Amino acid sequence: MFQDFSSSADPALGAERVARLRKRLASLGVDAVLIPRSDEHMGEYVPPSAERLAWLTGFTGSAGLAIIGAKKAALFVDGRYTLQAADQVDTGTFDIIQIPETEPRQWFAENLPKGARIGFDPWLHTRAAIARFEDGLAKTELVLKPLLRNPVDLVWGAERPAPPKGPLSVQPIELAGVTAADKIKALQKQLKAAGEDAVVLTLPESIAWLFNVRGSDVKHNPTPLAFAIVPAGSKPELYIDKAKIGPEVRKHLSGVVHIRAPDAVADRLTALRNEKKRVRLDTATAAMWIWQRLGGARGNISDASDPCILPKARKNDAEIRGARIAHERDGIAVTRFLAWLDREAPKGGIDEITAVRTLEAMRAETQALKEISFDTISGSGPNGAIVHYRVTEATNRKLRPGELFLVDSGGQYIDGTTDITRTVAIGTPTAEMRDRFTRVLKGHIAISELRFPAGTTGAHIDVLARHALWQAGFDFDHGTGHGVGSYLSVHEGPQSISKRGHVTLEPGMILSNEPGYYKTGAYGIRIENLLLVGAAAPIPGGDRPMLGFETLTLVPIDRRLVDVALLSPGERQWLNAYHARVAAVVGPHLNEADRTWLTQATAAI
Amino acid sequence: MFQDFSSSADPALGAERVARLRKRLASLGVDAVLIPRSDEHMGEYVPPSAERLAWLTGFTGSAGLAIIGAKKAALFVDGRYTLQAADQVDTGTFDIIQIPETEPRQWFAENLPKGARIGFDPWLHTRAAIARFEDGLAKTELVLKPLLRNPVDLVWGAERPAPPKGPLSVQPIELAGVTAADKIKALQKQLKAAGEDAVVLTLPESIAWLFNVRGSDVKHNPTPLAFAIVPAGSKPELYIDKAKIGPEVRKHLSGVVHIRAPDAVADRLTALRNEKKRVRLDTATAAMWIWQRLGGARGNISDASDPCILPKARKNDAEIRGARIAHERDGIAVTRFLAWLDREAPKGGIDEITAVRTLEAMRAETQALKEISFDTISGSGPNGAIVHYRVTEATNRKLRPGELFLVDSGGQYIDGTTDITRTVAIGTPTAEMRDRFTRVLKGHIAISELRFPAGTTGAHIDVLARHALWQAGFDFDHGTGHGVGSYLSVHEGPQSISKRGHVTLEPGMILSNEPGYYKTGAYGIRIENLLLVGAAAPIPGGDRPMLGFETLTLVPIDRRLVDVALLSPGERQWLNAYHARVAAVVGPHLNEADRTWLTQATAAI
Repeated sequence: MFQDFSSSADPALGAERVARLRKRLASLGVDAVLIPRSDEHMGEYVPPSAERLAWLTGFTGSAGLAIIGAKKAALFVDGRYTLQAADQVDTGTFDIIQIPETEPRQWFAENLPKGARIGFDPWLHTRAAIARFEDGLAKTELVLKPLLRNPVDLVWGAERPAPPKGPLSVQPIELAGVTAADKIKALQKQLKAAGEDAVVLTLPESIAWLFNVRGSDVKHNPTPLAFAIVPAGSKPELYIDKAKIGPEVRKHLSGVVHIRAPDAVADRLTALRNEKKRVRLDTATAAMWIWQRLGGARGNISDASDPCILPKARKNDAEIRGARIAHERDGIAVTRFLAWLDREAPKGGIDEITAVRTLEAMRAETQALKEISFDTISGSGPNGAIVHYRVTEATNRKLRPGELFLVDSGGQYIDGTTDITRTVAIGTPTAEMRDRFTRVLKGHIAISELRFPAGTTGAHIDVLARHALWQAGFDFDHGTGHGVGSYLSVHEGPQSISKRGHVTLEPGMILSNEPGYYKTGAYGIRIENLLLVGAAAPIPGGDRPMLGFETLTLVPIDRRLVDVALLSPGERQWLNAYHARVAAVVGPHLNEADRTWLTQATAAI
Repeated sequence: MFQDFSSSADPALGAERVARLRKRLASLGVDAVLIPRSDEHMGEYVPPSAERLAWLTGFTGSAGLAIIGAKKAALFVDGRYTLQAADQVDTGTFDIIQIPETEPRQWFAENLPKGARIGFDPWLHTRAAIARFEDGLAKTELVLKPLLRNPVDLVWGAERPAPPKGPLSVQPIELAGVTAADKIKALQKQLKAAGEDAVVLTLPESIAWLFNVRGSDVKHNPTPLAFAIVPAGSKPELYIDKAKIGPEVRKHLSGVVHIRAPDAVADRLTALRNEKKRVRLDTATAAMWIWQRLGGARGNISDASDPCILPKARKNDAEIRGARIAHERDGIAVTRFLAWLDREAPKGGIDEITAVRTLEAMRAETQALKEISFDTISGSGPNGAIVHYRVTEATNRKLRPGELFLVDSGGQYIDGTTDITRTVAIGTPTAEMRDRFTRVLKGHIAISELRFPAGTTGAHIDVLARHALWQAGFDFDHGTGHGVGSYLSVHEGPQSISKRGHVTLEPGMILSNEPGYYKTGAYGIRIENLLLVGAAAPIPGGDRPMLGFETLTLVPIDRRLVDVALLSPGERQWLNAYHARVAAVVGPHLNEADRTWLTQATAAI
């Protein structure tokens, strides 16, 4: 469960592995192959057996694409990963190319022979992604060719880990809120209304949500790697390794689904095609292999979004109750951590890894922690300015007085998933740090206390988190907030608060609110709470019903970093009211030393 | 030039005219016909000869669609026009249907015979609109059928006005900034880069902009009704009634374009089709007739936006200089009007029409007014709450003490187009009025003083104009701002500040900033200035270059309606600085009485 701090990549292995792969190009009938980081389910985490990109290149980031030609090879990564890639990869073997600044097709045009055929495994790319790729290559002579076997799997050999067989568990009805039978009924009604005969589900979160189960196949996400087919008028089928299903889960699922072996999905898709059934498939998230098997462009495919996504995002009353309890529990653990940090850090003995271990230990002491919800970002000083920093033994550094420490972490509890960032001053912060922190806080407050009419999207409100920064010539290069699951993925759409967040914010949705400011080489600031969308308190004299956010996260925000003069009276009031709530809810669960600390940390400003 | 206050509609005529039209349905081979409000150029204003919808129904609003079946007829209008339509139209002949709440296809299904053929004139609908209509009818047995002749024209008879022959004028190079030859060269370069052989231009504003001419065919918009074809490699062709072109314009255009008779466009389009030329056409704005003539779905049409739209929106230095001068001139006229209003209105003798006439007279006294840029919205008390109110003799009412008066108006000057709204207190306003006004002002200021990074769209910032209203349970049901032309249309995209404003805001663009608040039956508030996008002043200590807005409009905002306690120190500072600038720029051009008034109206708060 706990975080791993090794930097496991070994650039030296790349050249030899690429050489092995190159020998297979001719027999595959292609001039180059694409190796993405994804697995068959397109999730954020993949099991070790699917870490093909890392095995081949050494690169362990969460997004990337390699291409191996007969003579040249490249690794395409986005801006957050260029430094890490250069560090982990043999740059004699791979060109490292930053996307989207350079598009892969430009590298292709310059480094592949004219008319080259580029092979790809249709299990590891969505139809939508391949269609975009094809559009990009339309004016070139390059051709994409789906492969029957994954090229890495041909050469990986005996050291390849076995696919995971993580056991499933039942998500109790008191926490799930709605039975699997009722969810299936509602889904089938939707299919019938759309004139669809069945839907193919490929997202582990959707399957976990629909059947009220959780899995343990990948890190940090309690989801089962599986597929499901839900016919409009008969029992759903779950395609999953039976080794993952114990007696309790079998009992829970019996009557609800047919359990089938994973391999059986191929024939079932063929049958659906042959029977000319109208099958719903989300080509933006499903592997292209499924689309092909259903007949592709000549099949009877209804290309529409995964029908579990929206109902899953709108948490029901039981899930909301669970989220509140999980956040109270998590808030106690994180508050204890901050009290400890404040006592210990100024002595100079704490480093980033110690901090992560202590925070994990305090979460574990709740006796309810299932998993951390992602690798903790623990960045002191300049490391805090690296937005996707993950501490390793190599990068680990002490928390030094005069610096800021940024810690972004979360827990998976059976009743809810948490995600929180706090930035704290070690010793005395500079006036500049306090200015920037206060501007970030103003953005955080503007979102937190916003009231908005029905129909508002995340794109409409994102600017409120940036306004105080923009006015002073600053900004941050990430979205303000992402959706969060209910003991599921900590990054769960479709809702978000960002410039591209075009989904309407609806009651029951949970989102993060995490504006930041990053000064390269110096420090990073981020303040993150989770918010729940709901009806706003009635506004005396107001004309219209409004929605608003309830803040779920309950942990003090570092008052020493607040420049009170920059806050409006309303903002000050928000901070004081928030801190009073934290003190009232968390305080009673602390020992005396920590409670004394909390009293001072939440005193009114 | 001046506004017309008659309510010209006569509902009594509708029944007889519809009866005449119904007799033609059989010979047209259809069961019903669509009669839209648009002409062949899809502009906001149409000439009297194209006012088919008004002639047939009596309805004079700027958007609407009638359908005439053998037994039933309906008029579809949006929410702003339902009351006006009920007033102007014979409701015994026409059902009045509010869109989009009720979609036309629902009325069709209930009121037309099964399998009915619905005729339409492809000159009066875009291809995109007809395609949407067809999608809507896909699951019905109703069929759309393009007609060879407009059905209204068959029965309108001798009383139909002749098409306009408004003379063109040359837009001087000192104001246009770039020669027509250079604009054409840049356009042709763009066509070549896209592999297009020619573009068909159908928007009068695009043609006016490209050739540096202005027209006089419709009210308020100095645009010529004409078409143009610009080949990628040869001289453009302008299809226009030669009666519109005097010697000076002929001289200006010679060497730049071939002038052709309007009818010649048909054969030219056919030739382009037969030669299989790749022709760019904006099917969102061009009449479907042009698309058909180019071969429709089987033609070699490049469906892409009108290539004049973006360069026209980015005003050049000469246009920016002109805009500043036009706004200074307009600001003097409107300030004189407000001073007069403040002296006269409390006496009780002013009504809405007197106000419009006086404002027009003061603009005319600048000796530079070409036209008002739209019919003035002059709403006292409850009339101010009707967002698209246009005063008539029938609705005219006095400005009464204790009420608010909203006036939204603008001028067309050769160097720029203006658009300004002010809301003023007649006598003493209530605390509620001051509260609402101040919240609207806070939104107005938030947009005005915003700094934003490159890449920001209007949809991203619209919320800033609403934030202070939302927090108190209020909102307004229109966009915050629209693009404005340079001595062209006062509503000119593609940029806007609204929830659907997905165009990036770029330097040189001019936009309105007009948040409001409307209390039905009581009062309306709107504060509108025009803004110019440009680089923001450098921000000391800031990390990033930012864009910002320069306020062009220079007229006092009613201080008596400001609740100072609701303003932040920064907002107060903005208002005082704005007023100081108005006093400095406008003051020297006023007579003593008006200057005294201005001094008091712009005093710091």
